[in-house]
Order: sequence, then C-alpha cells, then structure tokens
Amino acid sequence: MDDGVKRIIQEPLIPETFHHVEKLEQFLHHARTSTYAKGAIVLAQGMEFDEIIYVQQGCLAVSMGTDDGHQKFLFHIGEGSIGLPTFLGEYHEVQIHAVKNSTVSFFKVEQILTIFREDEEIILDILQNLLTKVYYFMSQARNLNFYRPSSRVFRLLYNLCVNEGKQVGDHYEINFSLTQKTIGEITGTHYVTVCKLFQMLDRQGIVKKSKDKMIVYDLERLRSLINEIIEY
Amino acid sequence: MDDGVKRIIQEPLIPETFHHVEKLEQFLHHARTSTYAKGAIVLAQGMEFDEIIYVQQGCLAVSMGTDDGHQKFLFHIGEGSIGLPTFLGEYHEVQIHAVKNSTVSFFKVEQILTIFREDEEIILDILQNLLTKVYYFMSQARNLNFYRPSSRVFRLLYNLCVNEGKQVGDHYEINFSLTQKTIGEITGTHYVTVCKLFQMLDRQGIVKKSKDKMIVYDLERLRSLINEIIEY
Repeated sequence: MDDGVKRIIQEPLIPETFHHVEKLEQFLHHARTSTYAKGAIVLAQGMEFDEIIYVQQGCLAVSMGTDDGHQKFLFHIGEGSIGLPTFLGEYHEVQIHAVKNSTVSFFKVEQILTIFREDEEIILDILQNLLTKVYYFMSQARNLNFYRPSSRVFRLLYNLCVNEGKQVGDHYEINFSLTQKTIGEITGTHYVTVCKLFQMLDRQGIVKKSKDKMIVYDLERLRSLINEIIEY
Repeated sequence: MDDGVKRIIQEPLIPETFHHVEKLEQFLHHARTSTYAKGAIVLAQGMEFDEIIYVQQGCLAVSMGTDDGHQKFLFHIGEGSIGLPTFLGEYHEVQIHAVKNSTVSFFKVEQILTIFREDEEIILDILQNLLTKVYYFMSQARNLNFYRPSSRVFRLLYNLCVNEGKQVGDHYEINFSLTQKTIGEITGTHYVTVCKLFQMLDRQGIVKKSKDKMIVYDLERLRSLINEIIEY
C-alpha cells in the first residue's frame, strides 16, 4: 500500500482542491459524466444525493445556505479533485454550482468500492482529501470564533507570503489572483472591511496588491498586525 | 455492500460521536490499546501522528490551539466512535485529551486497509463519520459567520427541542445534561452571554433549565427569537 511518500496533511490556505485524487481519471468509465455551463447548479439545497463528484475540467463552488437566503462560500473543487456530497438526505443545505464551464464525473458509492478493490491508494487519497477538509473547517471555526476580522485577513496574507512568496531584492512577490471579494469570502470578513484593510496596508507601504500579484515590503510588520487591534 | 439501510448524514446538533464505527470492536486485536486517566493528553499539538483512534470506553475531547494559548473545543469522541488525526505532520494545532477515564485503541493505516478488505461496510462507516464531521464544521463556519451569538444559542435549543423533545401536556421536555459552559463552547458564544440568554428565557417563561432537563413552554416564541436582535 505504500507509495513511498509519507502522507502529511498540508493545511490549505485557500479552500481549493485540498488533496488531488487524480487516480480516479483512470476509472472514468465507471462514472456518468456531465458538462455544466458557468453558473449552472450541480447540486441544489435539499436535493437527495449519494455520489462522489470528480472534476475533470473547470471548477465548482460549494456553499451553504442561510435562513435569510445568503450563501456562505465554503470551498472550490478544482480540476483533479473531488467533492463528496454523499449520503445527503432531503434536509441538507449544501449547494454546488459551476464557477467555470466544467466537465464533472459522478461515481456511485458501489462503484467507488469496486475501484477501492482495484487500487487501495485511492481509499487513502479520498481519506486524505476528507481529513484535509475536516482540518480546514475546524481551523475556520476556530478562527471565526477567536480571531477578529483584521487578524483573519492579515494571517491569510502572511501565511500566503511565507508559503508561496518569492524573495526579490528586499521584498516578497506572490502570484495571486484572489480578489478582495474572495479574500472576504474565505476569511468570513465583509468585503468593505477587506478593502479598508488593503488600503491601510497600501498607505503604510506594507503590502501592495495588483490584479495578479501581491508584493510584501514589510513582512515583520504584517506579522505584528495580526495581533493588533485595528481601527477602521 | 448494502446493509439494507439507506445511509443519510444526520446533521449532529451536538458535536459528539458523529457516526458510530462500532464494527471496529471486532478488530481490536489489530490495534494497540492504552488507557488514559481523566485529563490526560492523548495527542499534543505538534506531535506527528498517523493512526486512527477508536474509543472503547470513556470520552475524548478534540480541540485546537490559538495563538494566545486558548483552546477552541471542537468535538467529543464518545464510546464506539472514532477520531482520525491521521497524516498529521509536526505543525498541526490539534490537541486531544481524555474527558473521562478512557480506554482507547489505535489502528495504523495499514491495519485499517487490512480491515477494509475483510469488511467493506467499515470503509463506508468511516467515510460517513468523516463526511458528517465535514458537514458539521462547514455548518459551524456558516453559523459563526452569519448568525449572531443569541441566534446560535436559540437555534441549538430549538433544534434540540424539535429533534429530541417529548411533549408532556402543554410543554416539551428534553433530557439534557449540557452545561451552559458546554453550550457556549459548542456555539462559539461567551459563557456570560449564554447565562444572560438563559436568564432571559427563564424570566419570560419560555424555557426553564435544570441540571439534567430542559423544559420548553413556548416553542414558537423560542423559534421567533432566533431571528430577533437581543439586547443583553
């Protein structure tokens, strides 16, 4: 069973993909496959569902409805990754829609068991994907419970810089296509707050953000801001 | 593979057990077993770990540390249920301790794969346990993000009454051993807030709570309070 590489959960900074299960690509003949146009609903609230979703192409977004009709964005399912809206009864509040034009395969639970018999690594890939999700959403509950909005936003930017930033001269560059709206959704912070925080970072010369890049000029200052009480 | 019963995730109101995996009881000879006194640490933050935990007896609590040394309570692992701190590297923030004197078995991943080969229902039980956790913590992130503290507390009480309450004359009785402290931990609400909300419910004759019972006199009023802005 050993693939020679020690499995370790990488806590994802961005709720996307979590852990690829690309081996399912070899078993697509067991699945039914559909295409969805951008914006199309793949799974509606309250729709009974018992399959595993594999995204061949495109990207899906998973969200959960609130009493007053809002949708809490939860995570993206990117190419080569899976969603498991398995065992959902008629009272669930999960919604899945296509963020891009997407090709999606659906495996029934029995088919997945058949696949497990052929390749046990896939069991571990699916477990790792799920465990990474559990870990991510436990962290999110912790962050929403204990950290103030500014702290959640700065923490995300700091971690992105530490994990993905490249040092260029005296600053760090991060390739970065997240919009301020998405940063708000990921951190559970109001869009207006995110804007104000970025304005503050910009004004103080700590971080500059363009459309597809973020430049961090003062990483230490960014880190210390995580624990400061910000007036905005 | 079919056990004749359709699997449906029951959204847990209380983060305990999630989904029993009692079939593991038959495979304890594959596991190592340890006992823990009440309060003992089973897994410390930053301790690499790669096993599946099965609670034979007692109860464990899973929490996650914060920067300033607090612990966010996440869930209990009750008798017959599992925790999967599998694939944890050295940077994780999860802590598990014994809430009662507990007997706990640890399965290595390879042992679990062996067990899967003998009984495929166990794969489904473990998947269902994990999926229920993902669903629960996604809901918690949604609730912490969108609902105010009073709404989270009243929603929990209302759902407990609807799901577990027994009608006795003109009121509902719920067997209920949760303390106000635990209700605060589960809903991510400050203990003092929970106390004030219970005082309000008591004063208005909506809900009376004793040590091991809760009596709901006005379920409709409790429901409408979920969406009211409470001054306390």
